[in-house]
This record gives sequence, C-alpha cells and structure tokens, in this order.
Amino acid sequence: MGIETVTTQLTTFLGQRLSRSKSDLELHGRSETHFPLMPPDAVAYPENAQEVAEIVRVCGQHHVPVIGWGVGTSLEGQAQAPSGGVCVDFSRMNRILEIRQADMDVTVQPGVTREALNEELRATGLFFPVDPGANATLGGMASTRASGTTTVRYGGMRQNVLSLEVVTPGGEIIRTGSRARKSSSGYDLTGLFVGAEGTLGLITELTLRLQGQPEAMASAVCAFPSIRNAVSAVIDTIQMGIPMARIELVDVATVQAVNAYSGSGLAEAPHLLLEFHGSESGVAEQSESFGEIARSHGGKGFDWATKAEDRNALWAMRHNAYHAIKATRPGAQVLVTDVCVPISKLAEVIEETRLDLENAGIHGPIVGHVGDGNFHTSMMFDKGDADQLAAVEAASHRMVERALANGGTATGEHGIGIGKKRYMDREHGHGWAIMGAIKQALDPDNTMNPGKLVPPRN
Amino acid sequence: MGIETVTTQLTTFLGQRLSRSKSDLELHGRSETHFPLMPPDAVAYPENAQEVAEIVRVCGQHHVPVIGWGVGTSLEGQAQAPSGGVCVDFSRMNRILEIRQADMDVTVQPGVTREALNEELRATGLFFPVDPGANATLGGMASTRASGTTTVRYGGMRQNVLSLEVVTPGGEIIRTGSRARKSSSGYDLTGLFVGAEGTLGLITELTLRLQGQPEAMASAVCAFPSIRNAVSAVIDTIQMGIPMARIELVDVATVQAVNAYSGSGLAEAPHLLLEFHGSESGVAEQSESFGEIARSHGGKGFDWATKAEDRNALWAMRHNAYHAIKATRPGAQVLVTDVCVPISKLAEVIEETRLDLENAGIHGPIVGHVGDGNFHTSMMFDKGDADQLAAVEAASHRMVERALANGGTATGEHGIGIGKKRYMDREHGHGWAIMGAIKQALDPDNTMNPGKLVPPRN
Repeated sequence: MGIETVTTQLTTFLGQRLSRSKSDLELHGRSETHFPLMPPDAVAYPENAQEVAEIVRVCGQHHVPVIGWGVGTSLEGQAQAPSGGVCVDFSRMNRILEIRQADMDVTVQPGVTREALNEELRATGLFFPVDPGANATLGGMASTRASGTTTVRYGGMRQNVLSLEVVTPGGEIIRTGSRARKSSSGYDLTGLFVGAEGTLGLITELTLRLQGQPEAMASAVCAFPSIRNAVSAVIDTIQMGIPMARIELVDVATVQAVNAYSGSGLAEAPHLLLEFHGSESGVAEQSESFGEIARSHGGKGFDWATKAEDRNALWAMRHNAYHAIKATRPGAQVLVTDVCVPISKLAEVIEETRLDLENAGIHGPIVGHVGDGNFHTSMMFDKGDADQLAAVEAASHRMVERALANGGTATGEHGIGIGKKRYMDREHGHGWAIMGAIKQALDPDNTMNPGKLVPPRN
Repeated sequence: MGIETVTTQLTTFLGQRLSRSKSDLELHGRSETHFPLMPPDAVAYPENAQEVAEIVRVCGQHHVPVIGWGVGTSLEGQAQAPSGGVCVDFSRMNRILEIRQADMDVTVQPGVTREALNEELRATGLFFPVDPGANATLGGMASTRASGTTTVRYGGMRQNVLSLEVVTPGGEIIRTGSRARKSSSGYDLTGLFVGAEGTLGLITELTLRLQGQPEAMASAVCAFPSIRNAVSAVIDTIQMGIPMARIELVDVATVQAVNAYSGSGLAEAPHLLLEFHGSESGVAEQSESFGEIARSHGGKGFDWATKAEDRNALWAMRHNAYHAIKATRPGAQVLVTDVCVPISKLAEVIEETRLDLENAGIHGPIVGHVGDGNFHTSMMFDKGDADQLAAVEAASHRMVERALANGGTATGEHGIGIGKKRYMDREHGHGWAIMGAIKQALDPDNTMNPGKLVPPRN
C-alpha cells in the first residue's frame, strides 16, 4: 500500500520526526467537539517549508492524503483524517521570524499560537487582534478563516493576513502577496488560501498585520430585558459609529452557568459585554455614549471598568463561558455550532433558536459576537446516547436552515470541515461547483485534506 | 467569422441595444491613459443579469471575447479590446436596488457610480467610503479592486464588497457570499472575483458595506521640510492609533502645479493633507495629537478646518491635482502609474523615484495615499514623441522594479490590465501559474477579457 512506501521515504529525511505510534495517531485523529476518532496513518513533524514540500511531493506521488495540524482546536473536524494519510503537525515550526515595528507587521511560522505571539509583542506596543477564544495556531486560524470577539473592530483572519508562503499540492513553495498594505496585482491568492482548510495547500509562513496597543481600554457590562433590546442597542451603537473593540451577547442560560461557575452575581437577564479601545478621553466618551444608548433600550446596571483587573475578570468570565456551560452537566458532551446573519435578523433568529431548543428539550446556552451578527450554541447531550445526539444534530440543522433563510451563512467562523459540508450546495449553489473546479485545477489528485469543504469528485 | 453570427444572435434579444457604430466602438476602445485605441467589434447594453448571461453564452459558443465596461476610467487598459469582441456596457444596469439601514449595506447594479450612490445615501446618514478619485462605476471598482484616499481608514473594495452576483464564463448566474458580515463557509469567491478584472466572469450585482456619516469631520494641511519627515509623521500617527480618514502626500512639483492651477498659496514644500472623522471632541483630539506629531517632525503651518467649505476646498485641490498637473504642460500626454511598498520603505522609494525622474529629465509630480504606502507619478510626454514615451515607460519600469525590490507590489490600486502584465511573473513567480490554472479551470475557452492579467495560454 502507498502509505508504507511513503512512510519509508519520509523517514529517510524526517527520521524520528515521522511518528506512527498509536498515541500520536489518536491524538491527531481526535476532534475538539463530537466527531468520532479519525486517525491518520502517520504524523510528520517538519521543521521548514522544504520538508513540508517534500512531504507533499512524496504523498502526491503515492496518492496518500496530507492533512495539516496546528493544535487541534478546530470545531468541524477540519484536521481529522477520514481517509487516513499523513498528518503534518506544525509544532516544530513555531518561530516568530521578524517583527517590523514601523510597518506594524510580523512574519511567523504556522505553528506559533496567538497567545505566544502576543506575549512576544507585549514590549513592542503592538498586538495581534484576532481572538477566536481558543489558543489556536496562526496557521490553523488562517486555514479556517478564524475570527472572534474583536472582529467587529479589527476584522478576522481574512483582513489581517497580509501574505502567505504556501506549499501547493504540486509541492511548489509560493508566496501570495507582498508586505505592501494593499495591492491590485492579480487574483487575491492570499484570500483564496485563507479559509481553504488545507484543501489547496499547506501554509508554511504568514505575514500578519498588527495593531497599536491602545492608550486606554474600558470594559462594560449591561443587562437588558430581552435579546431584542440588547441587539437594538448594538445596532444603534454601530450606526452611531462608536468603535467598539468587542461587543458580546450572553443569554440567560449562559449567565446562570457563569454565575454558578465563577461566583459572579450577574442579574439573570441577557447581557452585553463590551470593550472600548482608544485614548483616555475617547474611551470615556465611547462608554458614556453607549451607556445612553443602552438605557434608551431598557439596559440596566450599566457598569464600566477601566482597571485592568476588573476588565480581566470580565473577559475571563466570557472566555470561561464554554467551561461554565460544560460544568452545568458534568460528563455530558457538547455540540458547538455557529451561524451568522444580517444584524437586522439577529434578534429574531436567536429568539427562534432559543424557543426551538426549549421545545426540543435541549440545554443549549447561546453566546454571540453580536456586532457581526454571529452567534453560537453549545448543545449538551449524554455521551453514547444516540437519540440525544440525533436531537442536537437536528436542532443544529434547523439553526443553519434558519440562518440561510434569513440571508445568512451556515458558519460565521467555525468553518466547514466535515460537519457542515452538507450545507455547501444549499448556501452556494453553482458557486460550490466553482469551488470544486478550483480544487480540481490546483489539486487534481485530491491529496490535500480530502473529504473536506469541496464537492466529492465524480 | 464568429463575430457576425454573434452579432446576429445578440440582436435578436438586444435589438438597438447592440451597437456597431464607429463612434461607439471607438468610445469603448479608448483608455484614460496612454494606450492606443483597441476597439471591440460590438457594444452591448444589457438591462439585467439574464441578458448578460445570454451574451456570455452566445459569445462563448463562438469563441468571441467578452469585455466588461463601466465608465472607462481604469488606468491600465483593463476595459480595452485588444482582440476585439463584444464590450458589455453596464450603463443601463445602474439601479440602486435596496438600502438596508439597520444592516448598513446596499445592493446595487454594477453601472451605479460611487457619486450616484453617495448622493442617494445622503439622507440616510450612511455613506460608501471607497474613493479612487474618478467617479467610477461600482462594478468597475470591484473588478479592478479599487481603493483610494480613504482606504487607510475604511479599506478598499476588497474589504467593502460583502457579496456579488456574477455571470460565470459558462453563462451561469451565481451568488458569492451572503449578507452576513463574515463567513467561513468555503473558498472566498467574493475575494476572488474582486480584482479579477473581468477575466473570470462579469459582475451583475454588488452588495456593499456602508459606513455611518461621522458626527464631525476636520481636515488639516501641513508642510514638511522633506518627504522623509512627512512619512515619519505618518508612521508615528498610525502607531499612535490615531484613526485618520485620509492622509495624503503631495510633493513640491504637485504643490507648484496646484498653486498655479487653483490660486492656492501653499508653501513650496511637501505637504500632508489629512481628514479626521469622529465625534466633535474626538476629531479635535485627533487633530491636536497629529499637530504635535507633525511639529516633532518639522511640520510647519499646521492648519485645521472643520467648516465644510474649507474642507471641500482642500479636497477639491487634492482631487484636481491631476488636472493641475496636466495644465503644467498643455497638450502633453500623461503616463500615470502607481506602486505600493511597506511604509518603512516609502520615503526612500519616493526619494529615489524623484531623483530618477529628475535625472531622466521627466516632469512627473508625485502624490500618495501615504498611510497605505501607495504613491502615484504622473509623467508627462509629448504626444507622438516615441523617444519621450520610451523614456517615461522606462522610468515607470524602474519604479516598479524599485517597489518589488523593497518588498512591495507593482500596483497598489491601478491593477494589471495590459500595462503591468509583464511584472506578474516577477512579482508572483509560480503564483502567477496558479492564477493561470484558476483561469483555465473557470474559463477554458478564454473568452472573458482575454489578454489581461493571467499568463498566455500554451
């Protein structure tokens, strides 16, 4: 079989850095969420782009799948190996290559995590803003087109990747884009590889935009009588041009979970959590303007904090919401899903989803990056209970249908992978065939992360 | 010949809206800049996407080129017809289809110009920010990935197109993307068609992000002892996180031209022209902070204006710079070119370019969207003087070489078209072949705007 030949050939230059141990294969076949184990046949730990290119060439010659791996935090099974093959683990390509202060950009290897990058940047006065919650690798975040809490202000990976080095399915090393802030030179290959989930090549280097650390930050929290009132406040805030750095919605079930988990005493009502970045006076003005808007929509208990420890406590609470939710039913599994809709539809779509979950008897708290129209449910079910799994899957399905019916998308930031492939045709129509034609042109042998994102080959 | 059959077939449903008059062909074969006339064989004036799809299908069957046309303001010959064919003029598809205030987006037909859109938006409190100078159509601006004076704050077309309706080379009508603010659902087809210069299909509808009209605006102008000082002030301003809406550089030659043309009395030194958007107090704070930075870099005569008439006079001066420059040598032709480099290299690259032009005896004033590292030269030459044309072309060539050698791009915003195709290989290497593979997959018969952007077919 091809994999044996491939393993032999890869070992000649990777040595011990090609692993076939059972524990390694299982570690690289798991998913952060509810998908079953799908292990690769081998795990490679390359140290540079030339090694990655050689891995891709050898696998290509023997029609063996190649799957990229960051730290395994993707949520739709993007890094699992449904057809086996070689998993390329980027953990040894984790160097920050160059920070350029005047240009406010940085070049990194794909295995650097966002927290490691920001730790390194701390003394420079710069930071990398994209924050999907998990401490993912930057290569993985680019491949899945990640975004998160700060996207409303700073954009997601699509907006913050300036250029890439990519190993193509043919084993060529290419550079997409330059370090110029903008270009109209040819097709936007950078944009094509961002979000391609490793189906068109493997990212071996990224140049990222950075932001200046703001002079001042303030956080705020505010309770609302309903999700509709909270969303109306968000719409007004955006229309007024108040530049929120974060604006997050948590529903009542999330508030209850968080209160129980971290001992906070938030009122049992939907809340908005906000962060403002700017000058001292700018931040004060933004907070006050938002406070007025919030009150006009029934917001209560509006409170803002400029001290770092108070801000950190608030965002720790938000970041721990997933753990808090899991703690409400110890031992249960969670199906996490996300959709994104035009903000005018958001309140309605969230309310309908909440009611739907209630009717289906599913415990599924809702949190949202509400400034982007993006929200998540974490639906609990007992491990091994097929009926419960079927019920949460059906609820997730209705959530996607509802988003698409309201002019939205099947996923705002979690991606397609295995989990959402069945919605591609419905969402994109003939556009999905166009994606398939691009995949066929660039990867005719279908070795790069097969079974994900694009239509099956005829 | 194919074109005769095509003309006959198109006339059956377009009637008088298929033109073969000499004046129409010449009008649609011209260029805004120095390229010779390259007329199409016919000009079609469709009124909807179905007609566009039928035109593309008929032309495809007979291997006749199809070229899109907005208002003809592109600068690299993108809309000219070097192999003849049918020019699709979108002037009858110029309706604003829907403005959605809560979502801050708008759906338009491709023939709407940016000024017409902003005129229509005026009463809504919203505006569309991308401003390339010319009153181009939005379809053309998307196709050439236009940007301009406000890109430093609001992004260019790539950031401001939410989704597209496109007629593919096969004559299918597809939708790329949804109205959701973000998505990680599949390849970024919207990003692929933005900047494809009509080589992958024709845009028949656009959904665009809008911005809230700021509560307050202020403009400022400031003279600097050198371009390096001006650029250093810009770098500090960006690093401080001062959110300039526009920050434009004009060199001494441009100042002289503008003073002569509009009677302004600017000091004969490089100047920065700025605009700030925000709240009353935010704008005042930004202006003051910039004033301090400017003074620390030798800036003189810093003056800021909040009155609309003063601001308008300043920006009219900037927008008329091209006419002012042309007026310095009446009857002369102009080769306009642009490059974009990392901002840390900008001062050096502009200074070298200025010196190069001086040594070559070329009058070529420089203006720049300096916050993005993007600048333009307008090089004058006498019509019909082949030596002078060769000299300005050689200078343009050296400018591109200099940009590429400094980590930049051959064009920040004017695009590739005919004029800059020869730099694609140098800038993108094997990436250009990837673009060719995408083109081949989507347009196997090479009927969509042939001869532009991608490598020649083997």
